[in-house]
Amino acid sequence: MDAREIVEGLALTARVAARTLVASTGEQRRQALLAIAAEIDSRTDEIIAANNRDIERAKADSMHPQMQDRLLLTRERIAGIAAGARQVAALEDPLGRILKKSTLPNGLELEQMSVPFGVIGMVYEARPNVTVDAAVILLMSGNAALLRGSSTAEASNKVLIDVMRSALAKTSISPDVLQLVPSDDRATVQALLTARGKVDLVIPRGSASLIRMVVDEATVPTIETGAGVCHVYVDASADLAKALPIVMNSKTHRPSVCNAAETVLVHKSVAEKFLPTLLTSLHNAGVALHCDEAAELIAKTLSIDVGRATAQHWGTEYGVLEMNVGVVDSLEKAVDHIANFGTQHTEAIVTEDKESARKFIAMSDCAAVMVNASTRFTDGEQMGFGAEIGISNQKLHARGPMGLEAMTTTTWIVTGTGQIRS
Amino acid sequence: MDAREIVEGLALTARVAARTLVASTGEQRRQALLAIAAEIDSRTDEIIAANNRDIERAKADSMHPQMQDRLLLTRERIAGIAAGARQVAALEDPLGRILKKSTLPNGLELEQMSVPFGVIGMVYEARPNVTVDAAVILLMSGNAALLRGSSTAEASNKVLIDVMRSALAKTSISPDVLQLVPSDDRATVQALLTARGKVDLVIPRGSASLIRMVVDEATVPTIETGAGVCHVYVDASADLAKALPIVMNSKTHRPSVCNAAETVLVHKSVAEKFLPTLLTSLHNAGVALHCDEAAELIAKTLSIDVGRATAQHWGTEYGVLEMNVGVVDSLEKAVDHIANFGTQHTEAIVTEDKESARKFIAMSDCAAVMVNASTRFTDGEQMGFGAEIGISNQKLHARGPMGLEAMTTTTWIVTGTGQIRS
Repeated sequence: MDAREIVEGLALTARVAARTLVASTGEQRRQALLAIAAEIDSRTDEIIAANNRDIERAKADSMHPQMQDRLLLTRERIAGIAAGARQVAALEDPLGRILKKSTLPNGLELEQMSVPFGVIGMVYEARPNVTVDAAVILLMSGNAALLRGSSTAEASNKVLIDVMRSALAKTSISPDVLQLVPSDDRATVQALLTARGKVDLVIPRGSASLIRMVVDEATVPTIETGAGVCHVYVDASADLAKALPIVMNSKTHRPSVCNAAETVLVHKSVAEKFLPTLLTSLHNAGVALHCDEAAELIAKTLSIDVGRATAQHWGTEYGVLEMNVGVVDSLEKAVDHIANFGTQHTEAIVTEDKESARKFIAMSDCAAVMVNASTRFTDGEQMGFGAEIGISNQKLHARGPMGLEAMTTTTWIVTGTGQIRS
Repeated sequence: MDAREIVEGLALTARVAARTLVASTGEQRRQALLAIAAEIDSRTDEIIAANNRDIERAKADSMHPQMQDRLLLTRERIAGIAAGARQVAALEDPLGRILKKSTLPNGLELEQMSVPFGVIGMVYEARPNVTVDAAVILLMSGNAALLRGSSTAEASNKVLIDVMRSALAKTSISPDVLQLVPSDDRATVQALLTARGKVDLVIPRGSASLIRMVVDEATVPTIETGAGVCHVYVDASADLAKALPIVMNSKTHRPSVCNAAETVLVHKSVAEKFLPTLLTSLHNAGVALHCDEAAELIAKTLSIDVGRATAQHWGTEYGVLEMNVGVVDSLEKAVDHIANFGTQHTEAIVTEDKESARKFIAMSDCAAVMVNASTRFTDGEQMGFGAEIGISNQKLHARGPMGLEAMTTTTWIVTGTGQIRS
């Protein structure tokens, strides 16, 4: 069988099995998740053994140590994965919510109800924990899952799927709602992205090249979880005592993630006062700096070695301790800069002026605006969703962190007594 | 300039101008719509003159009379278009709605607010009224519009855009938020569909070939407004006195639209009682019939000439007075049939049994389920939205009729006092 036949076969099996999800109550899905958590706990040794095989192969292939770390499942991490499943089980059922309700003049009762998508494909990279994290969110929201992980995590993913399916076999939910898509062939990704009518939604999580492939080739609806070139703008009226920790936290707390900041823009009226402190702090934290002319001049007075920021720097998601620093004439210039170089993910403003905050919110076309807070708060857990399947970088359907609700669609239910149109 | 340069240039102009929409109040957008309505009223003669040129060209090209009728703008129709704009102006402002609000344990205030997409492209066919209908919905929801109509309506569309832009010139909204995309080159459609980063959303309205092109080529997010192969299922426990008018209305009220029914499925336990009446009524209404074996046998006893329904018939959106009739063993078999041949648009059940209704709702994976009502009610006006830009046939973002709210996305606003992540 070629990749297309394999993927379409898995999708069909998953769709038939998904009827057990559609027919299930929230309590039944909850029990299924708890069964998965229990099975993970009881088969931890087996999971570790499989993961060891992936790690050994990774070592033999001289995989980058940071990537090896992402691949690694320790006893503690596995316990964390099981805890995550229990946490999702404790969330409110996202299905059957009545989002709108009205009675029309002709007596028709109109309700908009949340329902599952059906079959959702996930394409993701090395981290094997995503196999379970994604599966439990999709199950709790009533969807069957086609999981296409990385070939480097093949052994881990296989045992994790087996563990979850064994757990489901003890419940009212068919194990076939979870399907592992073979990762030994890149063509299975393409097959997923073009399984139109067979797969209802594909969520890619990963590198820029994966996202680019999705944009170019997908015929199935997709939700992009993309790049974050996030900014912190320090306004003329900023409380600089707040601005410093916000910039530092936004950049250095976890530089590898999409909600880390890459650029700080400082209003010219506070630049001379603020930049010496900021540049020194960033430099001392090991952050390599790319400055515009004004910021560079200040850096020179501090004898801090910085580079000149080019258009390429302004548009780069570094993912490491590297940051652009610019001085702007006005809030509007900051917004213009962000419109040019941002990725509509998260933009922060530090200001004590409510009108500045209002303007920045209105003009920043992005998933999340932080007012006097770190960019790092664009996160499903932090925002109280309880779980996150990714951060949407698109405007359609879901924007920003996606929890259970984002994995549902709706049906209009119109109940009448024989009404017809005249 | 090639098509791409033209479209991207228009998109950029529209995006800059859209700042006047972002900065506008609901009242200002309302006034802009009323100005458009007034300008349409006062320049009706000019619109009719332009439309006459399109109609003359259509006649010279021997356009199908039904298509010519769609192209035609009469004094009455133009008054209707202006009335439509006033109706949208009277709707609730879809922007700035707070959809979610909470205070996080760390004191951060979290709000999810509705905001415009930005620049939305519309690709549509002959009807020139769509130029205004779409423009006013997009303006009221704060979006700039790139309107790509049919070349057959070129003169009409040009004057309608000119009328609307003249009206906007008298308001706080920049006329540049409305742009007519040249329709003399099919390449402008492709350029719109691939203007990623320049255009936020494209909504195609039209033929199956246009939809196919969108699916295959679009890299910009799109909302499909697609085909409707809608079914009416007459359950074992149906009130047949309701079932007859529901089927007749669903098929014959306006057969050309997507919410018209193409197939009726009758439970075997009521087939012998119901089908003689139904087949006779459909036949008398001039509906050509394609039957399965059981329905054909009954048709023969009535001496009604019918064809045998093939898989192709079951999957066809006729758009004319033609219908498939089948007998099913159970509600589950009806649902299976619908899953095989439906387009997830509108499915109706006629039943007096609440449990049957519940099952049908749960198992019908579609935009709208009608219980004891005509399929024709899947419609923005009928559902009380006040206006409709199309009926979404997809699960992502919007499902079913789309009004003003569907033309918005959201931003998370997180307001703090210096919070950082630890």
